[in-house]
Amino acid sequence: MNSPSPAPVLDRPTITLRKGSQRRALAGHPWIYSNEIEMTPAAKALPPGQVVRVNAEDGRPIGTALFNPHSLIAGRLLDADPHRVIDALFLAQRLERALALRERLYDKPFYRLIHAEADGLPGVVLDRFGDTLVLQTNSAGMERLLDALADAIDRVLKPQALLLRNDSPARKLEGLEPYVRMVSGALEGPLSLEENGVRFLADPREGQKTGWFFDQRENRARVAALAKGLRVLDVYSYCGGFALTAAAAGASEVTAVDRSEAALALAEQAAALNGLAERCRFRRADAFTELEAMVKSRQNFDIVVADPPAFVKSKKDLGQGARAYRKLARLSAECVRPGGFLFIASCSHNMEAGLFAEEVRRGIHDLAREARILASTGAAPDHPVHPALPESAYLKGLLLQID
Amino acid sequence: MNSPSPAPVLDRPTITLRKGSQRRALAGHPWIYSNEIEMTPAAKALPPGQVVRVNAEDGRPIGTALFNPHSLIAGRLLDADPHRVIDALFLAQRLERALALRERLYDKPFYRLIHAEADGLPGVVLDRFGDTLVLQTNSAGMERLLDALADAIDRVLKPQALLLRNDSPARKLEGLEPYVRMVSGALEGPLSLEENGVRFLADPREGQKTGWFFDQRENRARVAALAKGLRVLDVYSYCGGFALTAAAAGASEVTAVDRSEAALALAEQAAALNGLAERCRFRRADAFTELEAMVKSRQNFDIVVADPPAFVKSKKDLGQGARAYRKLARLSAECVRPGGFLFIASCSHNMEAGLFAEEVRRGIHDLAREARILASTGAAPDHPVHPALPESAYLKGLLLQID
Repeated sequence: MNSPSPAPVLDRPTITLRKGSQRRALAGHPWIYSNEIEMTPAAKALPPGQVVRVNAEDGRPIGTALFNPHSLIAGRLLDADPHRVIDALFLAQRLERALALRERLYDKPFYRLIHAEADGLPGVVLDRFGDTLVLQTNSAGMERLLDALADAIDRVLKPQALLLRNDSPARKLEGLEPYVRMVSGALEGPLSLEENGVRFLADPREGQKTGWFFDQRENRARVAALAKGLRVLDVYSYCGGFALTAAAAGASEVTAVDRSEAALALAEQAAALNGLAERCRFRRADAFTELEAMVKSRQNFDIVVADPPAFVKSKKDLGQGARAYRKLARLSAECVRPGGFLFIASCSHNMEAGLFAEEVRRGIHDLAREARILASTGAAPDHPVHPALPESAYLKGLLLQID
Repeated sequence: MNSPSPAPVLDRPTITLRKGSQRRALAGHPWIYSNEIEMTPAAKALPPGQVVRVNAEDGRPIGTALFNPHSLIAGRLLDADPHRVIDALFLAQRLERALALRERLYDKPFYRLIHAEADGLPGVVLDRFGDTLVLQTNSAGMERLLDALADAIDRVLKPQALLLRNDSPARKLEGLEPYVRMVSGALEGPLSLEENGVRFLADPREGQKTGWFFDQRENRARVAALAKGLRVLDVYSYCGGFALTAAAAGASEVTAVDRSEAALALAEQAAALNGLAERCRFRRADAFTELEAMVKSRQNFDIVVADPPAFVKSKKDLGQGARAYRKLARLSAECVRPGGFLFIASCSHNMEAGLFAEEVRRGIHDLAREARILASTGAAPDHPVHPALPESAYLKGLLLQID
């Protein structure tokens, strides 16, 4: 352990909840908003990310939290014990618990290992690609604990390489600067991973987010289970997740569309690795442009997958984003042959599941076609949801059959 | 075809939507409420279940519907074509479409073949146990079309036996009497079915609903995928669905609890059929009583499954039912060892998914234990949902890990 010694527990600073605003925290919610806290001069002066003790208004202790006086989410509860020592040992225990769950869920070491609050480590994202780990610390508190966290990861997982991919826009809300650096080891070229029995390639350094979207694992399997002998279109294919899983399950022909040449190149290499190159085509294009061209030329497919990046980046984008989902649903449904299938997803935090489903319904209704929802899905179980934060279930997927 | 000839299309009665109340129907909703229709003396005099043409207020045709002037859901849209002939041929086409979907979804002929509105046959439930079919007609319109429906089933599926299990409480809302009878063939003793590679026994004549709950197929597989080497408790086990699927997946020990001696006897026979009897115990008891006794004697399990009948039968039961779900969550979570899993479900139409999740969260919070939601699930895809009727997604399941 060469991390700085943790703040001693006995003289740990205390923040106090406001009388009229403590109901949520007392009921077990892990986030404490800034207006729920007595913002005394002492509290305001605490450094962002300080470990604090949280008290109810009457002095009763609530637990140990990370505190950032400059963030809307000012407190992030770490533990119900107000005296818990927050050090590499504590972090290692959380990692071990999360690892035990993933080892129960999956045979191979490719998954999201830490999914923030639901795994007891608010602001931390840790994705595992075998011996390489990719970390994000998206809260001031975890940024402050970074050395202890790196120690804990080293202790529990002994990775060959640990990449810190700290360029998420979420950091801005916590007053954190974006950067990317290796914490340990080296990373050269793309990484190989296995999912649903298919080999893929991902680039954690240059790719989107941490390089791979583990959250769609089960949805890829679900679409692939329908795909035997069918023609599949996968727009926003990225590194070929849906496309190659369907091809491996026996799809007769798969077309993967993405704007990124780098991502498509990885998809194409992975197709070759899996012996699927003959049945896969790769096309670099914007999804909307490509779908419009296909509609115009009356091309259709048995299965269309549309898994776009978030159209709703913030609440003010909601109207425009909702219209974009409706348009995407309409265009992609128009490329589904009668009786075929559409899988469409939204990873927009601010797009609630019911609203997303309604926009998809409208998009299909615009074509005067009938449809049935076969499954309303979310992220894979290595992306657990904290029971008090149902709104953090950001991924919504709909599998439909369209007449 | 020996069914009565359908009403001729040209002199088909017409119902007209009310000017201020037609927005929903025009937007593609398949249900038309009685207060959305011009209830003229002629409309009121139509026999319950009459096939009608539906017009917008301005005379524009909306489609063909089943009409029941005595039901809150007075119109149930069958087809967007107002001239569609509704006969055995029409019904057979809907059956063929539904059959093609199920054959794409499943290898074996055991599934829900028709799931009402989402399969284009409002009020019809048809479950398939190989060569035996179990039918429910839960709307006056489908009751009136029963002969044509039986003809269509015969044409498409040639079943050895067709049982009409018309004792659903839903019939009361349509003014229909309960009854159970064979339409064709004979049914003696329990039926055998296969699900997730496990043999089960079900009794469509005496059992709950149509004898088997196909809707939990994927949830059973999901729980079983975690169960290798673990000790599982399955309360409300009915014919052993979750219990035996887990045992077949390698659970070390499974305890199935149910109030029904008949259901448990089928579960026990099925355990023997699958060579799982040694690892399975069966206990006839009320779930709450049994869970309370287990809590008292500090018994715990690695996995607990609680899949109760609907606690909320109507909107007025909501408060009481919500408390029952909270209590069930608390008791069943208390029987989960630290780090183990809970799968808990609600099949109450009137219990919305968000409210159910909140009651489960509270029940676990009552124990001062932390948890994470690994999956929020619904019914299997042979129970599709009409996109305009999201509230018909009655089955909610939560898979949690509990610290």
